[in-house]
Parts: sequence; structure tokens; C-alpha cells
Amino acid sequence: MNAIPTVDLAQRTADLLERIRVTTPRVHCLMNTVVQKLVADGLSAIGAIPSMTSSIEEIDGFVRKADALTVNLGTLDVQRREVIGLGLDIAADRDLPWVLDPAHCDYSPPRAAFAQKLLERAPSVLRANASEFALLDRPMSLVGIRTGKTDLVTDGVRALGIETGHPLMAKVTGTGCLSGALIAAFLAVEGDAFLAGAAAMLAIGIAAEIAGQTAKGPGSFEPALLDALFLLDGETILKMGRVSDAES
Amino acid sequence: MNAIPTVDLAQRTADLLERIRVTTPRVHCLMNTVVQKLVADGLSAIGAIPSMTSSIEEIDGFVRKADALTVNLGTLDVQRREVIGLGLDIAADRDLPWVLDPAHCDYSPPRAAFAQKLLERAPSVLRANASEFALLDRPMSLVGIRTGKTDLVTDGVRALGIETGHPLMAKVTGTGCLSGALIAAFLAVEGDAFLAGAAAMLAIGIAAEIAGQTAKGPGSFEPALLDALFLLDGETILKMGRVSDAES
Amino acid sequence: MNAIPTVDLAQRTADLLERIRVTTPRVHCLMNTVVQKLVADGLSAIGAIPSMTSSIEEIDGFVRKADALTVNLGTLDVQRREVIGLGLDIAADRDLPWVLDPAHCDYSPPRAAFAQKLLERAPSVLRANASEFALLDRPMSLVGIRTGKTDLVTDGVRALGIETGHPLMAKVTGTGCLSGALIAAFLAVEGDAFLAGAAAMLAIGIAAEIAGQTAKGPGSFEPALLDALFLLDGETILKMGRVSDAES
Repeated sequence: MNAIPTVDLAQRTADLLERIRVTTPRVHCLMNTVVQKLVADGLSAIGAIPSMTSSIEEIDGFVRKADALTVNLGTLDVQRREVIGLGLDIAADRDLPWVLDPAHCDYSPPRAAFAQKLLERAPSVLRANASEFALLDRPMSLVGIRTGKTDLVTDGVRALGIETGHPLMAKVTGTGCLSGALIAAFLAVEGDAFLAGAAAMLAIGIAAEIAGQTAKGPGSFEPALLDALFLLDGETILKMGRVSDAES
Repeated sequence: MNAIPTVDLAQRTADLLERIRVTTPRVHCLMNTVVQKLVADGLSAIGAIPSMTSSIEEIDGFVRKADALTVNLGTLDVQRREVIGLGLDIAADRDLPWVLDPAHCDYSPPRAAFAQKLLERAPSVLRANASEFALLDRPMSLVGIRTGKTDLVTDGVRALGIETGHPLMAKVTGTGCLSGALIAAFLAVEGDAFLAGAAAMLAIGIAAEIAGQTAKGPGSFEPALLDALFLLDGETILKMGRVSDAES
Repeated sequence: MNAIPTVDLAQRTADLLERIRVTTPRVHCLMNTVVQKLVADGLSAIGAIPSMTSSIEEIDGFVRKADALTVNLGTLDVQRREVIGLGLDIAADRDLPWVLDPAHCDYSPPRAAFAQKLLERAPSVLRANASEFALLDRPMSLVGIRTGKTDLVTDGVRALGIETGHPLMAKVTGTGCLSGALIAAFLAVEGDAFLAGAAAMLAIGIAAEIAGQTAKGPGSFEPALLDALFLLDGETILKMGRVSDAES
């Protein structure tokens, strides 16, 4: 039996998306340089307000205005390591939810070690692909989302498979990073991190399926994904949401 | 009564756009890292030649080749502060027109202070949204463009409302930054900064309206905007230009 | 007479593209900040796996996982100069093929000098536009690709003109940088650098022609180019490949 039945998760996702559109939460992104634009546009598309500054002398003002944070380790360098530390200090001070996305930590031992240290700072959600996920020693109670064909969402007690999605996501750099940012947007309006994470993955997966219906390839898939996120509504979520059992 | 009647501004805009296409001015952009690609492509689309380098040891050659500059404060850091100073020294030396775009200075007090200091260096045009605009203490004679539903263009004596545009611009990160860069391109071919600024805003606003006719959402709006800038011609500008009275 | 007859190059290009799709080589890109996303997506579209990190403390792991490298000098700064040196040390150690793309070195004397020094480190291929190409003092035996309306491929003995391509490529920032990255992907599966370079240029040129058939302007051209790279197959390459004589 699912931790949350499909129809319930779909309804909650629809409600949370509506709450994002009404409250327009600010999501600050400590984001790799490759996909800043896609992540910003994806956040805007669902109704959140993105910001992207990674500079040490500016981070204070930005995190103080934010409602949630996503910390992505792609194209990590010394300056971004430092600003992540500062940003998380302010986030902790303000009790902000945040997502850890240890992008490509399987390529670089120092990055994996840094990701491991960040896990001690209690992210609300860890989002990673299978090889990144396997590398990290994750506290049982942390909400972990292992993305792939099925996205596995767990918190040590509950577990859920999100079955929505499209293979072209893997051909467009940054769709995973965008998932992390969308989780942060959902965390800004929902205190249950398991539910927020599952809802965000369900939403982007449905948008990806809609985009896949018209896309001819990865080039046309990306704008179609942004359009689908922008147009996504409760009725569509209820119709297209698919969840499966998953091992806890 | 308008500072410039609609039909006159539309005709001047058409003429200036033609001049840009013939003379292909180079616009150097000290640009935030998020939207460099969109800004470069937008400049190319109207016929200008973009460059983007923000490194201290390379700025000299780039500004010496440029015909105009745009200085955007998004994702500002120590290095870009320094390179902005150097770039403006060379620009002053060569008497180049330049645009100040204090992006997101309402998020960060040090950025607002830096923007205020840059205003002492006499930009040709200040382009900002309403909250950024309100923060800064602007010399009366400076050409200021406050973008929004109506774009207000003023120089302390003349004032004009540009009525073209489309709501999806606000959903695509970087359309404002691109406006700033297009103003710089128009400044490269027109010495009257009020006119150059008004013409650039009229042009991008018309392109946005054309893009909005086919876009399904922000994803499809962005490529359609670039296409519309590329295809924009005098006849369309004369047909679609809309200007309103504005308080000086 | 051509160094390689059209039909032979087209067949080899089709074979190499198939090899890329089967072996999914990793291409590490020391890439300017403007076009990282397009280059990553273009590499994914042909079946390669991109990575983009330019940080000194992370480069080791990334180059050790790579099968080929592209070194692009756009938006060059002190840190990227240093990381290029380190990356090439590891590449030399591992005998990896690499492409030098001296983007915009005609704007900046220090960049041109740096490009000249990198030529001493024996890139597999130099890819540049006409003005960049003319600036550099190139060893006769180096495979050089001068891109333009016709792309000239030479190695001092053989010479070939690649006639595929589309004018809108020049209106989309990063298509040249993407060509450099695709050459690296072809080098990962083909030891003859002349052949790998010619095949990569033939492939992107055909994809550009396909994209140009439906594009309304540069905005719609870019996603169409990525779609065409993704969908490119041997039959299309054999039908559309066009090669010309060129002075050696």
C-alpha cells in the first residue's frame, strides 16, 4: 500500500501548486552556472520568484528575502562553497527549508565529501540521481528523493514511487536541477517535506509528459516543459498523476 | 501631449533599427551570469554584435572595440564590481554611451549603494523596474526608464509612456536585462538618449506582442520573441507602435 | 579532387555518429559561461555525455572521467586560464584528444597570446572563425578547421571544404562553441583528427540545414537545431552531405 494514495497526492499537489501561485514564494538558488536560466524560468513558470546570486557580499540580503533555498553543487568552486556556508547560516537562523542537490558528486571526491558534510546541516530534502544517492551516507529520517525512471521518495518510514516523467528529461541539462528548485518552492508552502517533495516530482513529471506529447526532440522539449509547468492545473494533475508502491 | 507623437517615435524607431542593421554596432555587456545567452541572442537578432567578457585582464580590448556598453548588476560579485569600474574608465575615455541596469538592487543594500555610486558616473540611460527605480536617487536630467506595464521614459523635461509589451515578458528571466542591452544598441546609433531609450522599448514591446500572439506560455514565448526581434520591420513598427502621455 | 569523396565522408560520419550513440563518450568542456547550456544540450543530443566544471579543485576528477576535452577561450579569466593548464596536464597524462577553440581571441591581445601558447600543447584540432584563425601561428601538421560559409578542414596534407550549414547559425551565440564540443565527441571515437573534425562539421551543418527548413528566425532555430542533432541518422547524412575541393 502506498504511503499516500495516488488520488490524495494528486489532490495535495494541485492544492500546493495553487498555494504557490497565490503566495509567490521566493526561492533563492545557489545554482551551478550552466542551468541558472532554465531553473529561474521553471520557478517563474509555476508561480514562484527565483533569485540566483552566489556572491559572498550579497548573499545576506537575498537569503533574508527568501522563503526557501536550493543548494546545487554543479560547477562547484571555492567561492560557491563559501557562499553555501554563509547562506545556510542565514537559512538556519530564519528556519528556512532547503534542498540539497549534490549534482555530479560522483565525478569528484572533494565534491562528494562536501555533500556529505552538508548533510549534517539538515537539509529538508536530498534530491539526487541513483549514482549520487548511492555515494552519500544519509540519515534515515531525512527525506530523500532518488530520481530516475521512477522517482523514489522516502523518509525512512514512508516511501512512494512517482511514476510520471519523460525520457527526454535526461537529454536536457538542468531538468534535475530544476526539480530540486521546484521542491524548494513546494517546501515554502508545505511543512511536511515528504509531501512537498513528492508533490513537486509529481508536478514536473506530469509537465514533462505533456511536453513529450508535442516535442520532436530535446530542443523543442525544453520550451514545451516550461509551457506545461506554466499551464499546469489541478484537473490535469488529478487526471495524469501516477504513484506506485515503493520499498521503504 | 506626448513628448513625441506615436507616429514620429514609430518612424524614428524604424529608422534606428535600420541603422543598427546596417552599421552592426558592438555592444559590450557586463552582464549577470544567468541571462548572458538570451541577451547575446537578442542583440544579434536586432543586428548588433554582442560581447560578454567580465574578466579584469580582458576588459580593455573588449571595451575598446565596443560602440556602447550595458552594465547590469544581477549576480554582482567583487570581480564584476572591479571590472565595471575599469570598463567605465575606458568607456569614459572613448566617450561611449552606456546603460545602467541595477537589477535586483532592491534585494541587497550593498548593491543599491553601488548602483547609487554608478549614477555619479553619468550613464546615458538608467533602466530599472519600479522598486529598483524608487530606491535610487537619480539626477533630474538623466534619462530614466521605469519598466512595467507601461514603460515610462523621462529626462526631467520630456516624458513618454511606451504602451507596447506583453505580460509573458515578466515570466521569462532576462527580458528586462535584454531591454537594457537593446537600449545600448540604439544609443550606439542615436545621440539623443531619450529617443534611443524610447525607441528600444517600443521595439522590444512590439516584438513581445508579436511573440505573445503564438506563445502558449513562457517557454515558447522566448524563442518567439527572438524571432520577432529578428523579423521586425518598419511597417510593423508603424502599425503596432503605441505611445501615451506621461507625467514628466 | 577531394581529400575524401563526399560519399565516403558521409558514410564515415554516419558510422562515427552511431559509435558515439553506442559508446556515449564523456566530453569535458572548459567553456565560456555564456553558452554552457547550449553546448551541454548539443552534446547530449548527439549521444555524448557533457560536463562543464571549471574549478581548480574539482577539475582532476572530471578530466579523469572524460574521453575528450574542449577548451574554449570565451569569457576567459584568471581562474579559467589556470584550470585549462591543469586540465591539459591531466589530458596529456591520459593521452586524451582535445579541441582548442580560441573564441574572440581577435578582441583581446592577451587572449590571442594565450591561444598561441596553447597551440604548443598540441591540440588535436584547432577550430576558429576566419579572423581568429588568421591571428594564430599554427603548426602545419595540426588539424585546423576554419569555420564560415564553407568550413575548411586541413592538416597540411589533406584539405576539404564542408558545404553544409545555415546562415542562422551565425545569429545564435554558441553554435561555433558547440561545433568545437562536437568535434571533441567525434575525436573520442575516431583517432584520425582530420576525419573526426570533418565528420563533426558535416553533421552539425546538416542538422543546421534541417533546422533552417522550419525556423522562422534565430529563436526557433536553436531548439530545431538540437532536435535535428538528436534525430540525425545515417540515411539523412548520406542524402544531405556536401563536400567541396579546398586548397591544402
